Amino acid sequence: MLDDRLKQDCVLLAQSKLNYLLLNKDANFPWVILVPKQENISELFELSEADQVQLTLETNQIALRLKNAFQADKMNIAAIGNVVNQLHVHVVARFKLDALWPKPIWGAIEAKVYEEKQLKNTIELILNAISDLNFSDP
Amino acid sequence: MLDDRLKQDCVLLAQSKLNYLLLNKDANFPWVILVPKQENISELFELSEADQVQLTLETNQIALRLKNAFQADKMNIAAIGNVVNQLHVHVVARFKLDALWPKPIWGAIEAKVYEEKQLKNTIELILNAISDLNFSDP
Repeated sequence: MLDDRLKQDCVLLAQSKLNYLLLNKDANFPWVILVPKQENISELFELSEADQVQLTLETNQIALRLKNAFQADKMNIAAIGNVVNQLHVHVVARFKLDALWPKPIWGAIEAKVYEEKQLKNTIELILNAISDLNFSDP
Repeated sequence: MLDDRLKQDCVLLAQSKLNYLLLNKDANFPWVILVPKQENISELFELSEADQVQLTLETNQIALRLKNAFQADKMNIAAIGNVVNQLHVHVVARFKLDALWPKPIWGAIEAKVYEEKQLKNTIELILNAISDLNFSDP
């Protein structure tokens, strides 16, 4: 079950065996979030070693694909969770011309609302970019 | 070879086969940084899969030990690298009473200089906490 804040801020895009894949509805950055389905954990080391490995591989596979799909300058990957307790991993495509470069994005500016068409296109681009990975409809 | 900025801001604590382990000299937070020895890479996905796995396991093992050693409330783990190009992973112990809680720490405030004794104690505590891991003198 997804944390209420994640549910409110994100669109559920897909799922693997281990994780939900969310898009954060902040049009400032292509920004997805992996959320392990295992409940009641908040730290990466609370996952089994096998799941830690699977999570990092999925995270990095997605980061590579988003970097290429969006022609990003740098991928930012983080597990912070000081506000939302449920374990989640941010994967954010950054650009030298984005709203905050080179600063980190977390808690820095208000989310920018997606226009409907831009949201649809972004979701399509992401799902297309990860179509070779083991993610299915949520 | 370590990036100049990392060299300037950090103390080299130890090394594994894969990584250097640094302490960031910011007394605001117990804050270590893992730096893969492989040169000329800036993204996690540029490591081989085996090294991605090893890096994440070492990162999470260290995070668990620092959380316990410092009685932290939350560990923050991130690979950002918008400023320092050399691939590096932050592992930061956070406290509900720290200078920035619950905000992320990167680029947020000036580093607080360690007093000599506090620096020595912090290094000792960290090296002691990770003594069961495969890290040796740098």
